[in-house]
Amino acid sequence: MPCHVNRYSATRVTLASYVHVPAQYDLRMNRFNVTTSQHSEMIDITDRVRQVVSDANVSADSVMVYVPHTTAGITINENADPDVVRDVLKQLNEMVPWGQPFYRHGEGNSAAHVKASMMGSSVTVLIDAGRLVLGTWQSLWFCEFDGPRTREVIVQVRGG
Amino acid sequence: MPCHVNRYSATRVTLASYVHVPAQYDLRMNRFNVTTSQHSEMIDITDRVRQVVSDANVSADSVMVYVPHTTAGITINENADPDVVRDVLKQLNEMVPWGQPFYRHGEGNSAAHVKASMMGSSVTVLIDAGRLVLGTWQSLWFCEFDGPRTREVIVQVRGG
Amino acid sequence: MPCHVNRYSATRVTLASYVHVPAQYDLRMNRFNVTTSQHSEMIDITDRVRQVVSDANVSADSVMVYVPHTTAGITINENADPDVVRDVLKQLNEMVPWGQPFYRHGEGNSAAHVKASMMGSSVTVLIDAGRLVLGTWQSLWFCEFDGPRTREVIVQVRGG
Repeated sequence: MPCHVNRYSATRVTLASYVHVPAQYDLRMNRFNVTTSQHSEMIDITDRVRQVVSDANVSADSVMVYVPHTTAGITINENADPDVVRDVLKQLNEMVPWGQPFYRHGEGNSAAHVKASMMGSSVTVLIDAGRLVLGTWQSLWFCEFDGPRTREVIVQVRGG
Repeated sequence: MPCHVNRYSATRVTLASYVHVPAQYDLRMNRFNVTTSQHSEMIDITDRVRQVVSDANVSADSVMVYVPHTTAGITINENADPDVVRDVLKQLNEMVPWGQPFYRHGEGNSAAHVKASMMGSSVTVLIDAGRLVLGTWQSLWFCEFDGPRTREVIVQVRGG
Repeated sequence: MPCHVNRYSATRVTLASYVHVPAQYDLRMNRFNVTTSQHSEMIDITDRVRQVVSDANVSADSVMVYVPHTTAGITINENADPDVVRDVLKQLNEMVPWGQPFYRHGEGNSAAHVKASMMGSSVTVLIDAGRLVLGTWQSLWFCEFDGPRTREVIVQVRGG
Protein backbone atom coordinates (compact mmCIF):
# COMPACT_ATOMS: atom_id res chain seq x y z
CA MET A 1 0.00 0.00 0.00
CA PRO A 2 1.43 3.36 -0.94
CA CYS A 3 2.44 5.51 1.99
CA HIS A 4 1.03 8.73 0.64
CA VAL A 5 -2.31 7.37 -0.46
CA ASN A 6 -4.17 10.41 0.85
CA ARG A 7 -1.68 12.83 -0.52
CA TYR A 8 -3.85 14.59 -3.07
CA SER A 9 -7.18 14.38 -1.31
CA ALA A 10 -7.65 17.90 0.08
CA THR A 11 -9.60 20.83 -1.34
CA ARG A 12 -8.67 21.37 -4.94
CA VAL A 13 -8.28 24.40 -7.13
CA THR A 14 -7.94 24.45 -10.88
CA LEU A 15 -4.71 25.49 -12.51
CA ALA A 16 -4.71 28.44 -14.94
CA SER A 17 -5.47 27.55 -18.52
CA TYR A 18 -2.17 28.74 -19.89
CA VAL A 19 -0.33 26.05 -17.99
CA HIS A 20 -0.26 22.82 -19.97
CA VAL A 21 -1.94 20.66 -17.38
CA PRO A 22 -5.60 21.16 -16.47
CA ALA A 23 -4.38 20.13 -13.08
CA GLN A 24 -6.20 19.36 -9.90
CA TYR A 25 -4.17 21.08 -7.25
CA ASP A 26 -4.60 20.54 -3.54
CA LEU A 27 -3.25 22.19 -0.44
CA ARG A 28 0.20 20.82 -1.15
CA MET A 29 0.40 22.40 -4.55
CA ASN A 30 -1.06 25.83 -4.61
CA ARG A 31 -0.65 29.09 -6.44
CA PHE A 32 -1.25 32.79 -6.14
CA ASN A 33 -1.15 35.83 -8.39
CA VAL A 34 1.34 38.65 -8.28
CA THR A 35 0.35 41.96 -9.85
CA THR A 36 3.30 44.06 -10.89
CA SER A 37 3.18 47.79 -11.54
CA GLN A 38 6.60 48.52 -13.02
CA HIS A 39 8.52 47.34 -16.07
CA SER A 40 11.27 45.93 -13.84
CA GLU A 41 10.31 45.17 -10.27
CA MET A 42 11.07 42.84 -7.39
CA ILE A 43 8.21 41.94 -5.05
CA ASP A 44 8.68 40.20 -1.70
CA ILE A 45 6.49 37.08 -1.71
CA THR A 46 7.89 35.45 1.42
CA ASP A 47 4.76 35.93 3.52
CA ARG A 48 2.53 34.53 0.81
CA VAL A 49 4.73 31.44 0.53
CA ARG A 50 4.65 31.09 4.33
CA GLN A 51 0.85 31.19 4.17
CA VAL A 52 0.75 28.38 1.61
CA VAL A 53 3.06 26.29 3.79
CA SER A 54 0.93 26.97 6.83
CA ASP A 55 -2.30 26.16 4.98
CA ALA A 56 -0.88 22.87 3.75
CA ASN A 57 -0.85 21.76 7.37
CA VAL A 58 1.61 18.93 6.83
CA SER A 59 4.98 18.07 8.29
CA ALA A 60 6.93 19.55 5.38
CA ASP A 61 10.68 19.49 4.87
CA SER A 62 10.90 21.99 2.02
CA VAL A 63 8.92 24.15 -0.34
CA MET A 64 9.52 24.80 -4.00
CA VAL A 65 8.38 28.09 -5.45
CA TYR A 66 8.03 28.15 -9.22
CA VAL A 67 7.39 30.91 -11.76
CA PRO A 68 5.70 29.63 -14.95
CA HIS A 69 6.82 32.61 -17.02
CA THR A 70 9.77 33.28 -19.33
CA THR A 71 10.16 37.02 -18.72
CA ALA A 72 10.02 36.81 -14.94
CA GLY A 73 12.09 34.97 -12.37
CA ILE A 74 12.56 34.36 -8.67
CA THR A 75 15.51 34.87 -6.36
CA ILE A 76 16.45 35.15 -2.70
CA ASN A 77 17.98 38.42 -1.53
CA GLU A 78 17.96 41.05 1.19
CA ASN A 79 14.73 42.49 2.56
CA ALA A 80 16.01 45.07 5.07
CA ASP A 81 16.95 47.97 2.79
CA PRO A 82 14.73 48.45 -0.28
CA ASP A 83 17.72 49.98 -2.04
CA VAL A 84 19.25 46.51 -2.36
CA VAL A 85 16.70 45.16 -4.82
CA ARG A 86 16.57 48.56 -6.52
CA ASP A 87 20.34 48.33 -7.06
CA VAL A 88 20.08 44.71 -8.22
CA LEU A 89 17.51 45.70 -10.87
CA LYS A 90 19.61 48.69 -11.96
CA GLN A 91 22.71 46.54 -12.34
CA LEU A 92 20.79 43.85 -14.26
CA ASN A 93 19.56 46.56 -16.64
CA GLU A 94 23.14 47.79 -17.00
CA MET A 95 24.43 44.31 -17.86
CA VAL A 96 21.50 43.38 -20.08
CA PRO A 97 20.44 46.50 -22.00
CA TRP A 98 16.87 46.55 -23.23
CA GLY A 99 17.82 47.70 -26.72
CA GLN A 100 20.78 45.66 -27.96
CA PRO A 101 21.15 46.22 -31.72
CA PHE A 102 21.60 42.49 -32.32
CA TYR A 103 18.30 41.40 -30.77
CA ARG A 104 15.95 39.82 -33.33
CA HIS A 105 13.01 38.57 -31.24
CA GLY A 106 9.92 40.34 -32.57
CA GLU A 107 8.37 41.12 -29.21
CA GLY A 108 11.39 43.24 -28.33
CA ASN A 109 11.72 41.84 -24.82
CA SER A 110 14.79 39.65 -25.23
CA ALA A 111 16.46 41.39 -22.30
CA ALA A 112 13.66 40.15 -20.04
CA HIS A 113 14.26 36.58 -21.24
CA VAL A 114 17.99 36.86 -20.46
CA LYS A 115 17.36 38.21 -16.97
CA ALA A 116 14.75 35.51 -16.30
CA SER A 117 17.33 32.82 -17.02
CA MET A 118 19.97 34.62 -14.95
CA MET A 119 17.73 34.67 -11.87
CA GLY A 120 16.11 31.29 -12.50
CA SER A 121 12.52 30.10 -12.50
CA SER A 122 12.40 28.43 -9.09
CA VAL A 123 13.84 28.43 -5.61
CA THR A 124 13.59 25.75 -2.96
CA VAL A 125 13.58 26.70 0.71
CA LEU A 126 14.04 24.24 3.56
CA ILE A 127 11.38 23.98 6.24
CA ASP A 128 12.10 23.13 9.85
CA ALA A 129 9.40 22.72 12.47
CA GLY A 130 6.92 24.27 10.07
CA ARG A 131 8.91 27.40 9.34
CA LEU A 132 10.99 28.50 6.38
CA VAL A 133 14.72 28.23 7.05
CA LEU A 134 15.83 31.68 5.90
CA GLY A 135 18.59 33.97 7.11
CA THR A 136 17.42 37.09 8.94
CA TRP A 137 17.81 39.28 5.89
CA GLN A 138 16.58 36.79 3.31
CA SER A 139 13.31 37.11 1.45
CA LEU A 140 11.91 35.42 -1.65
CA TRP A 141 11.59 37.95 -4.43
CA PHE A 142 9.40 37.64 -7.49
CA CYS A 143 11.33 39.32 -10.31
CA GLU A 144 9.28 41.10 -12.96
CA PHE A 145 11.31 41.90 -16.07
CA ASP A 146 8.58 42.83 -18.56
CA GLY A 147 5.72 44.34 -16.61
CA PRO A 148 3.38 45.55 -15.56
CA ARG A 149 1.43 42.29 -15.71
CA THR A 150 -0.52 39.86 -13.61
CA ARG A 151 1.74 36.89 -12.96
CA GLU A 152 1.36 33.55 -11.26
CA VAL A 153 3.48 31.75 -8.69
CA ILE A 154 3.14 28.01 -8.09
CA VAL A 155 4.10 26.56 -4.72
CA GLN A 156 4.70 22.91 -3.88
CA VAL A 157 4.98 21.95 -0.21
CA ARG A 158 7.12 18.83 0.14
CA GLY A 159 7.49 16.08 2.69
CA GLY A 160 5.09 15.12 5.46
CA MET B 1 10.00 -1.27 7.29
CA PRO B 2 11.08 1.38 4.79
CA CYS B 3 8.31 2.74 2.65
CA HIS B 4 10.23 2.77 -0.59
CA VAL B 5 11.77 -0.67 -0.28
CA ASN B 6 11.23 -1.43 -3.95
CA ARG B 7 12.38 1.94 -5.07
CA TYR B 8 15.49 0.93 -6.98
CA SER B 9 14.42 -2.43 -8.28
CA ALA B 10 13.62 -1.76 -11.94
CA THR B 11 15.75 -2.26 -15.05
CA ARG B 12 19.13 -0.69 -14.53
CA VAL B 13 21.58 1.09 -16.77
CA THR B 14 25.16 1.93 -15.91
CA LEU B 15 26.25 5.50 -15.46
CA ALA B 16 28.99 6.89 -17.70
CA SER B 17 32.51 6.33 -16.44
CA TYR B 18 33.38 9.98 -16.13
CA VAL B 19 30.82 10.40 -13.41
CA HIS B 20 32.28 9.50 -10.02
CA VAL B 21 29.81 6.80 -9.17
CA PRO B 22 29.72 3.50 -11.06
CA ALA B 23 26.04 3.80 -10.38
CA GLN B 24 23.19 1.44 -10.91
CA TYR B 25 20.43 3.60 -12.31
CA ASP B 26 16.85 2.52 -12.69
CA LEU B 27 13.81 3.93 -14.35
CA ARG B 28 13.61 6.68 -11.77
CA MET B 29 17.09 7.91 -12.47
CA ASN B 30 17.89 7.90 -16.12
CA ARG B 31 20.02 9.76 -18.60
CA PHE B 32 20.34 10.62 -22.25
CA ASN B 33 22.90 12.16 -24.53
CA VAL B 34 22.70 15.51 -26.25
CA THR B 35 24.86 16.08 -29.32
CA THR B 36 25.59 19.72 -29.96
CA SER B 37 26.75 21.14 -33.27
CA GLN B 38 27.65 24.73 -32.42
CA HIS B 39 30.08 26.41 -30.06
CA SER B 40 27.19 28.09 -28.23
CA GLU B 41 23.82 26.47 -28.59
CA MET B 42 20.55 25.91 -26.75
CA ILE B 43 18.70 22.66 -27.40
CA ASP B 44 15.11 22.00 -26.31
CA ILE B 45 15.13 18.78 -24.25
CA THR B 46 11.58 19.04 -22.87
CA ASP B 47 10.21 16.11 -24.85
CA ARG B 48 13.10 13.87 -23.82
CA VAL B 49 12.52 14.71 -20.18
CA ARG B 50 8.79 14.03 -20.62
CA GLN B 51 9.68 10.63 -22.04
CA VAL B 52 11.81 9.76 -19.01
CA VAL B 53 8.98 10.79 -16.70
CA SER B 54 6.51 8.72 -18.70
CA ASP B 55 8.83 5.68 -18.76
CA ALA B 56 9.31 5.86 -15.00
CA ASN B 57 5.63 5.02 -14.70
CA VAL B 58 5.31 6.24 -11.12
CA SER B 59 3.14 8.80 -9.41
CA ALA B 60 5.79 11.51 -9.47
CA ASP B 61 5.58 14.97 -7.97
CA SER B 62 8.62 16.50 -9.61
CA VAL B 63 11.59 15.83 -11.86
CA MET B 64 15.12 17.10 -11.50
CA VAL B 65 17.20 17.51 -14.64
CA TYR B 66 20.94 17.67 -14.07
CA VAL B 67 23.88 18.48 -16.33
CA PRO B 68 27.15 16.85 -15.13
CA HIS B 69 29.34 19.29 -17.06
CA THR B 70 31.12 22.53 -16.15
CA THR B 71 30.95 24.25 -19.53
CA ALA B 72 27.27 23.57 -20.15
CA GLY B 73 24.14 24.41 -18.22
CA ILE B 74 20.38 24.15 -18.22
CA THR B 75 17.63 26.75 -18.08
CA ILE B 76 13.94 27.26 -18.71
CA ASN B 77 12.94 29.77 -21.37
CA GLU B 78 10.66 30.44 -24.33
CA ASN B 79 10.13 27.87 -27.06
CA ALA B 80 7.80 29.72 -29.46
CA ASP B 81 10.23 31.97 -31.31
CA PRO B 82 13.71 30.54 -31.96
CA ASP B 83 15.06 34.09 -31.92
CA VAL B 84 14.60 34.18 -28.15
CA VAL B 85 17.30 31.63 -27.34
CA ARG B 86 19.43 33.04 -30.17
CA ASP B 87 19.22 36.47 -28.50
CA VAL B 88 19.90 34.97 -25.05
CA LEU B 89 23.08 33.33 -26.35
CA LYS B 90 24.16 36.53 -28.12
CA GLN B 91 23.66 38.60 -24.98
CA LEU B 92 25.52 36.05 -22.82
CA ASN B 93 28.44 36.27 -25.27
CA GLU B 94 28.27 40.06 -25.04
CA MET B 95 28.39 40.00 -21.24
CA VAL B 96 30.97 37.24 -21.00
CA PRO B 97 33.46 37.73 -23.84
CA TRP B 98 35.34 34.62 -24.93
CA GLY B 99 38.72 36.38 -24.94
CA GLN B 100 39.08 38.45 -21.78
CA PRO B 101 42.75 39.49 -21.41
CA PHE B 102 42.73 38.53 -17.73
CA TYR B 103 41.71 34.89 -18.22
CA ARG B 104 44.44 32.46 -17.13
CA HIS B 105 42.80 29.03 -17.46
CA GLY B 106 44.92 27.07 -19.93
CA GLU B 107 42.05 25.53 -21.86
CA GLY B 108 40.89 29.00 -22.88
CA ASN B 109 37.23 28.29 -22.17
CA SER B 110 36.76 30.31 -18.99
CA ALA B 111 33.82 32.14 -20.55
CA ALA B 112 32.00 28.82 -20.88
CA HIS B 113 32.57 28.14 -17.17
CA VAL B 114 31.14 31.55 -16.24
CA LYS B 115 28.05 31.06 -18.38
CA ALA B 116 27.53 27.54 -16.99
CA SER B 117 27.36 28.96 -13.46
CA MET B 118 25.09 31.82 -14.56
CA MET B 119 22.53 29.39 -16.03
CA GLY B 120 23.00 26.69 -13.39
CA SER B 121 23.53 22.94 -13.60
CA SER B 122 20.02 21.76 -12.79
CA VAL B 123 16.35 22.64 -12.95
CA THR B 124 13.47 21.05 -11.12
CA VAL B 125 10.03 20.94 -12.69
CA LEU B 126 6.83 20.05 -10.84
CA ILE B 127 4.70 17.19 -12.08
CA ASP B 128 0.96 17.06 -11.75
CA ALA B 129 -1.14 14.11 -12.87
CA GLY B 130 1.86 12.73 -14.72
CA ARG B 131 2.62 15.86 -16.70
CA LEU B 132 5.24 18.56 -16.38
CA VAL B 133 3.86 21.78 -14.93
CA LEU B 134 5.20 24.28 -17.47
CA GLY B 135 3.80 27.51 -18.79
CA THR B 136 2.67 27.43 -22.41
CA TRP B 137 5.86 29.02 -23.67
CA GLN B 138 8.28 27.27 -21.34
CA SER B 139 10.75 24.63 -22.44
CA LEU B 140 13.81 23.09 -20.80
CA TRP B 141 16.93 24.12 -22.67
CA PHE B 142 20.27 22.38 -22.58
CA CYS B 143 22.87 25.15 -22.86
CA GLU B 144 26.08 24.30 -24.71
CA PHE B 145 28.82 26.87 -24.10
CA ASP B 146 31.89 25.05 -25.44
CA GLY B 147 30.76 22.77 -28.23
CA PRO B 148 30.33 20.97 -30.38
CA ARG B 149 30.40 17.94 -28.09
CA THR B 150 28.40 14.96 -26.97
CA ARG B 151 26.94 15.78 -23.59
CA GLU B 152 24.92 13.93 -20.98
CA VAL B 153 21.77 14.85 -19.11
CA ILE B 154 20.75 13.01 -15.92
CA VAL B 155 17.10 12.92 -14.91
CA GLN B 156 15.67 11.95 -11.54
CA VAL B 157 11.93 11.38 -11.28
CA ARG B 158 10.75 12.06 -7.74
CA GLY B 159 7.85 11.02 -5.58
CA GLY B 160 5.47 8.13 -6.15
CA MET C 1 0.72 6.12 10.79
CA PRO C 2 3.23 8.42 9.16
CA CYS C 3 6.05 6.66 7.38
CA HIS C 4 8.78 8.94 8.60
CA VAL C 5 7.74 9.03 12.23
CA ASN C 6 11.33 8.71 13.41
CA ARG C 7 12.64 11.17 10.90
CA TYR C 8 13.78 13.89 13.25
CA SER C 9 14.82 11.77 16.22
CA ALA C 10 18.63 11.72 15.99
CA THR C 11 21.20 13.87 17.79
CA ARG C 12 20.24 17.48 17.45
CA VAL C 13 22.15 20.70 17.12
CA THR C 14 20.71 24.18 17.43
CA LEU C 15 20.49 26.45 14.44
CA ALA C 16 22.30 29.78 14.56
CA SER C 17 20.33 32.62 16.05
CA TYR C 18 20.35 34.74 12.91
CA VAL C 19 18.24 32.19 11.10
CA HIS C 20 14.56 32.79 11.79
CA VAL C 21 13.81 29.39 13.20
CA PRO C 22 15.28 28.26 16.53
CA ALA C 23 15.35 24.91 14.83
CA GLN C 24 16.17 21.49 16.08
CA TYR C 25 18.34 19.96 13.39
CA ASP C 26 19.26 16.31 13.20
CA LEU C 27 21.61 14.26 11.09
CA ARG C 28 19.46 14.82 8.03
CA MET C 29 19.64 18.55 8.28
CA ASN C 30 23.03 19.73 9.29
CA ARG C 31 25.30 22.71 8.84
CA PHE C 32 28.88 23.77 8.90
CA ASN C 33 30.83 27.01 8.86
CA VAL C 34 32.99 28.34 6.07
CA THR C 35 35.63 30.91 6.95
CA THR C 36 36.61 33.07 4.01
CA SER C 37 39.81 35.10 3.78
CA GLN C 38 39.30 37.19 0.64
CA HIS C 39 36.76 39.77 -0.47
CA SER C 40 35.76 37.55 -3.41
CA GLU C 41 36.54 33.87 -3.07
CA MET C 42 35.29 30.45 -4.10
CA ILE C 43 35.84 27.57 -1.66
CA ASP C 44 35.38 23.92 -2.56
CA ILE C 45 32.93 22.43 -0.02
CA THR C 46 32.31 19.11 -1.81
CA ASP C 47 34.09 16.97 0.77
CA ARG C 48 32.24 18.61 3.63
CA VAL C 49 28.92 17.96 1.94
CA ARG C 50 29.98 14.35 1.32
CA GLN C 51 30.72 14.03 5.03
CA VAL C 52 27.25 15.26 6.00
CA VAL C 53 25.69 12.78 3.58
CA SER C 54 27.82 9.98 4.98
CA ASP C 55 27.02 10.92 8.60
CA ALA C 56 23.29 10.97 7.87
CA ASN C 57 23.57 7.25 7.27
CA VAL C 58 20.33 6.98 5.33
CA SER C 59 19.44 5.76 1.87
CA ALA C 60 19.36 9.23 0.36
CA ASP C 61 18.41 10.18 -3.19
CA SER C 62 19.63 13.78 -3.16
CA VAL C 63 21.15 16.50 -1.05
CA MET C 64 20.30 20.18 -1.00
CA VAL C 65 23.01 22.62 -0.02
CA TYR C 66 21.78 26.04 1.06
CA VAL C 67 23.52 29.33 1.81
CA PRO C 68 21.51 31.52 4.25
CA HIS C 69 23.29 34.72 3.19
CA THR C 70 22.51 37.49 0.70
CA THR C 71 26.07 38.41 -0.26
CA ALA C 72 27.28 34.86 -0.84
CA GLY C 73 26.12 32.09 -3.12
CA ILE C 74 26.78 28.54 -4.23
CA THR C 75 27.52 27.01 -7.61
CA ILE C 76 28.92 23.91 -9.28
CA ASN C 77 32.04 24.32 -11.40
CA GLU C 78 35.43 22.85 -12.27
CA ASN C 79 37.85 21.72 -9.57
CA ALA C 80 40.88 20.61 -11.63
CA ASP C 81 42.52 23.93 -12.44
CA PRO C 82 42.27 26.63 -9.74
CA ASP C 83 42.48 29.24 -12.51
CA VAL C 84 38.91 28.38 -13.50
CA VAL C 85 37.26 29.76 -10.36
CA ARG C 86 39.77 32.61 -10.33
CA ASP C 87 38.67 33.53 -13.87
CA VAL C 88 34.99 33.15 -12.93
CA LEU C 89 35.42 35.58 -10.03
CA LYS C 90 37.36 38.04 -12.22
CA GLN C 91 34.68 37.97 -14.90
CA LEU C 92 31.89 38.42 -12.34
CA ASN C 93 33.74 41.48 -11.01
CA GLU C 94 34.06 42.76 -14.57
CA MET C 95 30.35 42.37 -15.22
CA VAL C 96 29.25 43.62 -11.81
CA PRO C 97 31.61 46.45 -10.82
CA TRP C 98 31.90 47.10 -7.09
CA GLY C 99 31.52 50.87 -7.47
CA GLN C 100 28.65 51.62 -9.85
CA PRO C 101 27.74 55.32 -9.55
CA PHE C 102 24.02 54.48 -9.40
CA TYR C 103 24.20 52.19 -6.36
CA ARG C 104 22.30 53.60 -3.36
CA HIS C 105 22.46 50.82 -0.76
CA GLY C 106 24.20 52.31 2.28
CA GLU C 107 26.41 49.33 3.03
CA GLY C 108 28.10 49.75 -0.35
CA ASN C 109 28.00 46.04 -1.16
CA SER C 110 25.26 45.99 -3.81
CA ALA C 111 27.60 44.21 -6.22
CA ALA C 112 27.80 41.29 -3.79
CA HIS C 113 24.00 41.09 -3.70
CA VAL C 114 23.82 41.00 -7.50
CA LYS C 115 26.42 38.24 -7.75
CA ALA C 116 24.70 36.24 -5.00
CA SER C 117 21.48 36.19 -7.04
CA MET C 118 23.37 35.38 -10.24
CA MET C 119 24.95 32.28 -8.67
CA GLY C 120 21.93 31.33 -6.54
CA SER C 121 21.53 30.38 -2.92
CA SER C 122 21.26 26.61 -3.26
CA VAL C 123 22.23 23.62 -5.34
CA THR C 124 20.78 20.14 -5.28
CA VAL C 125 22.95 17.15 -6.10
CA LEU C 126 21.65 13.66 -6.80
CA ILE C 127 22.88 10.76 -4.70
CA ASP C 128 23.26 7.25 -6.02
CA ALA C 129 24.33 4.33 -3.83
CA GLY C 130 25.37 6.77 -1.13
CA ARG C 131 27.57 8.92 -3.35
CA LEU C 132 27.13 12.32 -4.92
CA VAL C 133 26.43 12.11 -8.65
CA LEU C 134 28.97 14.63 -9.94
CA GLY C 135 30.96 14.79 -13.14
CA THR C 136 34.69 14.16 -12.75
CA TRP C 137 35.53 17.85 -12.83
CA GLN C 138 32.56 19.08 -10.80
CA SER C 139 32.80 20.46 -7.30
CA LEU C 140 30.41 22.45 -5.12
CA TRP C 141 31.78 25.93 -4.56
CA PHE C 142 30.81 28.29 -1.80
CA CYS C 143 30.97 31.78 -3.33
CA GLU C 144 32.03 34.62 -1.03
CA PHE C 145 31.28 38.03 -2.52
CA ASP C 146 31.75 40.30 0.50
CA GLY C 147 34.37 38.73 2.73
CA PRO C 148 36.29 37.92 4.63
CA ARG C 149 33.64 36.54 6.99
CA THR C 150 32.53 33.42 8.77
CA ARG C 151 29.63 31.99 6.82
CA GLU C 152 27.24 29.10 7.27
CA VAL C 153 26.13 26.33 4.92
CA ILE C 154 22.98 24.30 5.61
CA VAL C 155 22.69 20.80 4.19
CA GLN C 156 19.55 18.70 3.90
CA VAL C 157 19.93 15.02 3.03
CA ARG C 158 16.79 13.77 1.28
CA GLY C 159 15.12 10.44 0.80
CA GLY C 160 15.72 7.26 2.74
